[in-house]
Amino acid sequence: MRSFASDNNSGVHADILRAIESANQGHAIAYGDDEITQRTIKKFKEVLSSQVEVFFTFTGTAANVLGLSAAIRPYNAVICSELAHINVDECGAPEKFLNAKLITVPTIDGKITVEGVKKHMHGFGDQHHVQPSVISVSQVTEMGTVYTLEELKVLADYAHSNNLLFHVDGARLANAAVSLGKTFKEMVSGTGVDILSFGGTKNGLMFGEAIVFFKPELSNGFKFIRKQGMQLASKMRYVAAQFEAYLSNDLCYRTAAHANRMAQLLAEEVAKIPEVAITQKVQANGIFAIIPQRAIAKLQKEYFFHVWDEDRSEVRWMTSFDTTENDIKDFVEALKKVLAK
Amino acid sequence: MRSFASDNNSGVHADILRAIESANQGHAIAYGDDEITQRTIKKFKEVLSSQVEVFFTFTGTAANVLGLSAAIRPYNAVICSELAHINVDECGAPEKFLNAKLITVPTIDGKITVEGVKKHMHGFGDQHHVQPSVISVSQVTEMGTVYTLEELKVLADYAHSNNLLFHVDGARLANAAVSLGKTFKEMVSGTGVDILSFGGTKNGLMFGEAIVFFKPELSNGFKFIRKQGMQLASKMRYVAAQFEAYLSNDLCYRTAAHANRMAQLLAEEVAKIPEVAITQKVQANGIFAIIPQRAIAKLQKEYFFHVWDEDRSEVRWMTSFDTTENDIKDFVEALKKVLAK
Amino acid sequence: MRSFASDNNSGVHADILRAIESANQGHAIAYGDDEITQRTIKKFKEVLSSQVEVFFTFTGTAANVLGLSAAIRPYNAVICSELAHINVDECGAPEKFLNAKLITVPTIDGKITVEGVKKHMHGFGDQHHVQPSVISVSQVTEMGTVYTLEELKVLADYAHSNNLLFHVDGARLANAAVSLGKTFKEMVSGTGVDILSFGGTKNGLMFGEAIVFFKPELSNGFKFIRKQGMQLASKMRYVAAQFEAYLSNDLCYRTAAHANRMAQLLAEEVAKIPEVAITQKVQANGIFAIIPQRAIAKLQKEYFFHVWDEDRSEVRWMTSFDTTENDIKDFVEALKKVLAK
Amino acid sequence: MRSFASDNNSGVHADILRAIESANQGHAIAYGDDEITQRTIKKFKEVLSSQVEVFFTFTGTAANVLGLSAAIRPYNAVICSELAHINVDECGAPEKFLNAKLITVPTIDGKITVEGVKKHMHGFGDQHHVQPSVISVSQVTEMGTVYTLEELKVLADYAHSNNLLFHVDGARLANAAVSLGKTFKEMVSGTGVDILSFGGTKNGLMFGEAIVFFKPELSNGFKFIRKQGMQLASKMRYVAAQFEAYLSNDLCYRTAAHANRMAQLLAEEVAKIPEVAITQKVQANGIFAIIPQRAIAKLQKEYFFHVWDEDRSEVRWMTSFDTTENDIKDFVEALKKVLAK
Repeated sequence: MRSFASDNNSGVHADILRAIESANQGHAIAYGDDEITQRTIKKFKEVLSSQVEVFFTFTGTAANVLGLSAAIRPYNAVICSELAHINVDECGAPEKFLNAKLITVPTIDGKITVEGVKKHMHGFGDQHHVQPSVISVSQVTEMGTVYTLEELKVLADYAHSNNLLFHVDGARLANAAVSLGKTFKEMVSGTGVDILSFGGTKNGLMFGEAIVFFKPELSNGFKFIRKQGMQLASKMRYVAAQFEAYLSNDLCYRTAAHANRMAQLLAEEVAKIPEVAITQKVQANGIFAIIPQRAIAKLQKEYFFHVWDEDRSEVRWMTSFDTTENDIKDFVEALKKVLAK
Repeated sequence: MRSFASDNNSGVHADILRAIESANQGHAIAYGDDEITQRTIKKFKEVLSSQVEVFFTFTGTAANVLGLSAAIRPYNAVICSELAHINVDECGAPEKFLNAKLITVPTIDGKITVEGVKKHMHGFGDQHHVQPSVISVSQVTEMGTVYTLEELKVLADYAHSNNLLFHVDGARLANAAVSLGKTFKEMVSGTGVDILSFGGTKNGLMFGEAIVFFKPELSNGFKFIRKQGMQLASKMRYVAAQFEAYLSNDLCYRTAAHANRMAQLLAEEVAKIPEVAITQKVQANGIFAIIPQRAIAKLQKEYFFHVWDEDRSEVRWMTSFDTTENDIKDFVEALKKVLAK
Repeated sequence: MRSFASDNNSGVHADILRAIESANQGHAIAYGDDEITQRTIKKFKEVLSSQVEVFFTFTGTAANVLGLSAAIRPYNAVICSELAHINVDECGAPEKFLNAKLITVPTIDGKITVEGVKKHMHGFGDQHHVQPSVISVSQVTEMGTVYTLEELKVLADYAHSNNLLFHVDGARLANAAVSLGKTFKEMVSGTGVDILSFGGTKNGLMFGEAIVFFKPELSNGFKFIRKQGMQLASKMRYVAAQFEAYLSNDLCYRTAAHANRMAQLLAEEVAKIPEVAITQKVQANGIFAIIPQRAIAKLQKEYFFHVWDEDRSEVRWMTSFDTTENDIKDFVEALKKVLAK
Repeated sequence: MRSFASDNNSGVHADILRAIESANQGHAIAYGDDEITQRTIKKFKEVLSSQVEVFFTFTGTAANVLGLSAAIRPYNAVICSELAHINVDECGAPEKFLNAKLITVPTIDGKITVEGVKKHMHGFGDQHHVQPSVISVSQVTEMGTVYTLEELKVLADYAHSNNLLFHVDGARLANAAVSLGKTFKEMVSGTGVDILSFGGTKNGLMFGEAIVFFKPELSNGFKFIRKQGMQLASKMRYVAAQFEAYLSNDLCYRTAAHANRMAQLLAEEVAKIPEVAITQKVQANGIFAIIPQRAIAKLQKEYFFHVWDEDRSEVRWMTSFDTTENDIKDFVEALKKVLAK
């Protein structure tokens, strides 16, 4: 059964699996002091900035939560979109680990703006109020949209001029980069991001995310936080090896570009169906569409995918590095068939 | 460079890697609703008890901490050995996640007894005192020793008769089982364990541990705790597939038996060296020994291993599923050579 | 200088101070096992319900947070108004102590409705989502309005029919009761409240709030939570004695009635001033009004009060048990004078 | 019934109560911006050091826990005596609020030494280990003994030379000062204390403790921590007024001196009884003694006091500012009588 439910329904990219197999040679010091890990961290420095500090984690939730912990004491707050993964999809892990509040900004397309953030920028110095210390955005957003470089820069500048830090949840960072036609360096290092969750699992890794600090002082004591956060891999070479392959030979960009292309193809095809209304710009590998209620359950018998908003009959379809043109063709056929019934 | 530092310096067992490769077919629902995960949980039920509930995590620290969270509210306490991994090797993860106190019992050989526990069994009902709610032991212990079935049963019975739960940190559970010549079922289900951290990484897995609840009510709401604890794997089939192979064809027992045998061999050989004094019973795959101070740094140039107690000049050597007889032979030679200098 | 900033700018009511003095006789067992505390808890049972369990705390924030902790595990969530004291005025104490999320419902007048709550009643059983377990309202609300008995009952019934609990932040509970012309029993016990923060400090106590559980099982282990929450008074007789006086001879109702009356008087007087627009129903002891920007700073030189919404030039005036008719008269004169300039 | 159970079984000293009554005049800004609070903080600066920052809390547990929070991130640890109040009498509040570990040092007389601390000063920089960041002692200790100035200084110097901070739990600070014949300034400011819990409740206050930071940077953001810790008093003038009186006219020293004298008297008298063995030096206002088992319950019918160690038949008797010579005389008579039976 093929899935358009999420890019994490895909398996592991062949090049990644090969890298894991290659790493499986002899003994290696545990907990990150091995050669592969050291080599991969260097790779990150090349790709992003020589200044970065890099820490691997297992899950994207952990990358977000632990990364934010460098910018937060419990009386601080994170300002983010009300649709942010950290706000709605992490079962309260931020509140549990950070012991701090998330302040949410309404959004339709998943993006937030300085205008929306500003409404919460008050009460500084007032002991009754939480003290915002970081703005967090998702790139790609949860609605499949992509911030422009200018949009990121404006938010980062606003954060910095108010003594806040700027965090990016990059679970689908590569999809954003290829969507903009930019490198990670241009998109992230160039716009003023301070803390980055650099995703891998949603684009072909088996598991593994990286927390990247662009200000070295943010990583003070962070190794203890990662361990205390239960995210220190003993056999870390197997996380690092995946990222080494991912960052080599443009693998990350190629897989993301393919996924995005498949999303465009799917969008073009379903746009031709009168009963389907696409609700968000298709800028990466996600498509949001309203389709007739009666079609949903039927189509779900053949394909995994999620209903996004039951009331609106809105669904989400995600493409992946391994989605094929045939997958798209078959899916569109299946959709047409259930609509015809 | 070969390592006797820890069993997690070894790589991934070939059968485990093959299982991962086999799992890498097509799409699968994320977060544990895939077939492999369901199949593997069934396997656990066969191996342990039809009553168990099983949850995978990435790390052993997470298995311990999240498992204990089912037995703890912050005003409760865990009673454990002062040498317990949860007490000294998890960077305070239990205190961070459980927000509760660990109460420690002194020990020489890593084991605790009812006598030692009893000293802390007071203050129940007194609002000034934390309320012990769980006894935790490690099997194999941190000193390489193994509780007998009788010893486990006595502790479990004592816990239960005082309304406490009994937790086992089984990071090296297979090594303990083969040491005792017992199955997991006899050793764990049969002695009254309530919560088990079932280890895999230290015996040939790439990553992955399992939390096992023997009382189904302990798992109420636990899926939320795991997600909030940042341990929910999206591509869970790759954890499950490893455990499926691990529990099949006695792989777990065979690899552990080999590691234990190598430890025996190493113990026998070093026991012949007059300047080496073995300090703990060698019952699993760890050897503790006092060796001349001057030899340590020299030997560490050729082999990874840890100094356990600097003051006593005591070291720890761990064997693994992939330690060879030649490794042992070469290591003993090297040791003799540095001692001869 | 007189204050309309908050009812906690007032001192201690003479009857309360007298009760403290009377309690200051000889020795008494600490931590609540004294006679006065036991007597006062009985009084609460008379006033509210024979079923209640009562625990004193020092602050209203503590009463709210600790009270809610009986209804929450960290993966749960509290649904409350976006203006709720727990959400905006407690510096993140709920997130810090409960480690859980607050989900907020927009409101103009401080009240929330089932309609607003319903939007967040989804994701139950989904491991990615926090699980709402309690609805919390403030009675009197932060906007000076008062829920009717019917409104409370509808919310309580909705909570219960969805397996949630119903919490009331009653920092100004007496003001609400006299506003509705109801007893505490009718207003709270009769509508289905499960957990109540019963306020005292804002109505003439020196310090002291009470957490009241209407379902005895909610108080299981709660004495440990209070101690761990750093709210166990050693000389508890001095909290209890205040509440004993407060609940005797209708003192609580009389003082609240006076404060409410003063608010009505003030509202009537300022309503006559063309440049003043009252923005919320005056149902208890708070008045919200838009006044010309230029008047605010000048008036604040003579009287303490808070600007509620700088953009709208909206201020909040609170009356208290010790506000006099002359206070009102003088304040209105002063307001007129600064407006005339 | 008179009590030798604890100094908090006493009531409020007449001068303190009078100060409260005097403070009960008119309106005052809430939350510490009132004149009395500002005046009292100045008083603390006179008494301790012009550099100190002072924050009031309600309870001693809160003073300890919140004070320590300025020296701790969750991966740090507090090194303290195994008998420390923070370790055994606060129901895990430190673990709950700090999310950090307490590391305990064995002690007979309640004091710890550099020798004992040193055993835990390892693992710095190792990501698996908690990182000690503060040494905490109680002055008076929980065993009624008092550190000399030299002993405090040695511990403070050791802490500082290892980049740790030095915290003193001064629940009975005045009793220690008069025991040593030193001022607070000599005993605390002069020895290198960084964080002080300055107690009041156990020496005649109704409620109220002060957290004192001797390094101003420790108080950065602390007002938010106090509020989030649920310890911000709205009517703070009533805490401050008590401390103002306490620090005026040597009241604190006089009351403590009286309590200590009563303890000496009691010690002298019971020392004459052959069946009573005093087990600790009587240096402040507590006496520890072994008395015949059969006498305990009988004596408790007439006087409140605690059994300290049931196995040893050891009891604790505390004197207070309001203990009279007659109290002592009567108590000794009663003791003799139950022993004679």
